Amino acid sequence: MNKKAVLLILDGLGDLPTPKTPLQMAKKPNMDKLSKQGMNGLIHVIAPGVKPGSDTGHLTLFGYEPWEYYKGRGPLEALGADIPLDEGDVAFRANFATVEGGIIKDRRAGRIDSETAEKLSKKLSTRIRGVDLIFKSTFEHRGVLVLKGKNLGHRISDTDPHTEGPVQKCRPLFESDFEHRTAEIINDYTKYAMKILRENSVNQERKRKGLLPANALLVRGAGKYMQIPSMKERFDITSACVAGGNLYKGCAKYVGMDIISVPGATGTKNTNLKAKADAAVKALKGHDFVFVHVKATDSFGHDGKCKEKAKMIEKVDKDLIPGLAKTGAYLMITGDHSTPCIRKGHSGHPVPVLLHGENLRTDDVKKFDEINCAKGGLGQFYGKDVMNILLDSMGKSKYYGS
Amino acid sequence: MNKKAVLLILDGLGDLPTPKTPLQMAKKPNMDKLSKQGMNGLIHVIAPGVKPGSDTGHLTLFGYEPWEYYKGRGPLEALGADIPLDEGDVAFRANFATVEGGIIKDRRAGRIDSETAEKLSKKLSTRIRGVDLIFKSTFEHRGVLVLKGKNLGHRISDTDPHTEGPVQKCRPLFESDFEHRTAEIINDYTKYAMKILRENSVNQERKRKGLLPANALLVRGAGKYMQIPSMKERFDITSACVAGGNLYKGCAKYVGMDIISVPGATGTKNTNLKAKADAAVKALKGHDFVFVHVKATDSFGHDGKCKEKAKMIEKVDKDLIPGLAKTGAYLMITGDHSTPCIRKGHSGHPVPVLLHGENLRTDDVKKFDEINCAKGGLGQFYGKDVMNILLDSMGKSKYYGS
Repeated sequence: MNKKAVLLILDGLGDLPTPKTPLQMAKKPNMDKLSKQGMNGLIHVIAPGVKPGSDTGHLTLFGYEPWEYYKGRGPLEALGADIPLDEGDVAFRANFATVEGGIIKDRRAGRIDSETAEKLSKKLSTRIRGVDLIFKSTFEHRGVLVLKGKNLGHRISDTDPHTEGPVQKCRPLFESDFEHRTAEIINDYTKYAMKILRENSVNQERKRKGLLPANALLVRGAGKYMQIPSMKERFDITSACVAGGNLYKGCAKYVGMDIISVPGATGTKNTNLKAKADAAVKALKGHDFVFVHVKATDSFGHDGKCKEKAKMIEKVDKDLIPGLAKTGAYLMITGDHSTPCIRKGHSGHPVPVLLHGENLRTDDVKKFDEINCAKGGLGQFYGKDVMNILLDSMGKSKYYGS
Repeated sequence: MNKKAVLLILDGLGDLPTPKTPLQMAKKPNMDKLSKQGMNGLIHVIAPGVKPGSDTGHLTLFGYEPWEYYKGRGPLEALGADIPLDEGDVAFRANFATVEGGIIKDRRAGRIDSETAEKLSKKLSTRIRGVDLIFKSTFEHRGVLVLKGKNLGHRISDTDPHTEGPVQKCRPLFESDFEHRTAEIINDYTKYAMKILRENSVNQERKRKGLLPANALLVRGAGKYMQIPSMKERFDITSACVAGGNLYKGCAKYVGMDIISVPGATGTKNTNLKAKADAAVKALKGHDFVFVHVKATDSFGHDGKCKEKAKMIEKVDKDLIPGLAKTGAYLMITGDHSTPCIRKGHSGHPVPVLLHGENLRTDDVKKFDEINCAKGGLGQFYGKDVMNILLDSMGKSKYYGS
């Protein structure tokens, strides 16, 4: 019995047939071989028909049920950006945006590049009403804002309207002094950031060049950080994360995984899949459990690009799967939710799953896709069961009773 | 509609293919006929990937979820050994062992026979710090220790190291006066038992004969007894148990079943299966529900003996099944957990299940094994659902709502 396992999450993998799903369209001999040799099924990540976010989806698959362990996206983004958090800190996902007369003209400030964003970040960390605010740009127009201090509240609304329109006032969503105070700090900070960004020479230069200035910061996904027991504490395993995207590294760090830095792993369609495979194989030598993440399948789903999603699956099959399969570790391949191209967004449809490794029972499934996996021997189970199934495969499950 | 049901639990029945599972290897025309005529599925006894103990596995299948009704193995062993328990008593599974200089030489004292063990039990019941301690030997080296009194704690560690090595000191696992006091009583008792056993002439005779002396008692599985509502109270059915093993009789008594004494039912591979079938048929006349247990399938799994496990299944098929099948009662056959021979221990893999009886829906399954049952019409369900399914088959389910 192999005592190690790899969990490969292809983000937003599940889809709907139009008339075929991307998984059905893709030529993926390696995955199909694993499917044939292994066991297959469907996962209801949260519950049937419940549409997971990427954060809650991943936490659930790691065995951390969101109703117990999830307090908003912000802290996960902050952890992914390597900002140290203390109990009670409140964090946000942030976007550089272009605003004219209080109205958002572009929510991504012309998708500014990461280098420009970093230059614009100067002086965006500050102190308001006795609370330290730390801003850090991450990838392109994306960034993270952290409020460090006591008596902060996270049940407050976004300033990002999630569409073109006026910048929103941050409002408490729960009647409490903490929430009122924190919302006021955010409203003060929004004005402060606009002033600082207006004065930044980079923006003045962008204006001269006819580019959209990044003259506002929008925040969303407020969350309060709490320390939670690690995978080591709960499952007695060492674990590592191979991912490009910020949020996924953050989810992994939250549950105590070691984050493996992979050059060329970007969280985009151009990510270096071979480098990821190599990193995962290496990580497996020093860890019991390795989580590998691929983001682009989800991105193509959001863009409604069915063929491109299928091609990304083919790329994964060619460049990532062989390396993972040859380790001999138990390999589970699944998604954190469905992102049907026809929906251009997440959905609650279950995601296909395959489990490959030594001494497993078998089933009749020969192709890894949404339709065939529904006939598999793993049946349909919940995302919260994934870690228990993997731990049991690895011979690391603990007795319940005696 | 027949209003009676038999639940046959073949202990540790589920297995992994190497390349076939014992159920796949075994010639079992009777079970396969029931499988073909009836419905089939897989049971996740606790939850997918969760490894049940024999105690929690049985309680769950009886409809008693362990997180509500399970407080350790000891009381179940004590009930199985016919020691009357009062609310708050703390009980342990105990082993006669051979110790030299504080180090365990044989955890089973050379597997002494039951008769010798009974002779050695003299004076092992005593009173320490105002608490009555009752020891009773059960089968071979096995026994039960009960502490009767108030203010006892059960969250304490085993003196049995579960391997060769030094006898362990009993320690509180929870900070409380009750636990501290109970651990001290156990440590005092361990010394007391060693003194009594050393002085016992049986041991002096064993030494002269070159046999291992049973000169120590190891305890484990501390549990606190609580009275719980019976099957009669919860499900409005009369119920009976046909089993050889002590723990299984104890689980049954705990939930209020009548224990049928069956001569030759030993909980070993030599158990008298025909006598069990006869006893079950007889018990069914006076009871709505009969639980029948066979232990040896699990024992062969623990010993890694695949072929012997298959042969035991064949024996069950030949000597036990026909008698149960001809009663006309609903018959469910399953396991309390998997004990894959390749693992030599329990695992969290689901167990195959078949349900046979009047007016059931059908499915396409023709062979009763782990692989085929995954395609059955009962699907995959939880151990806690078993009693509801049986009660509903018997026409004894109650309305939820109106």
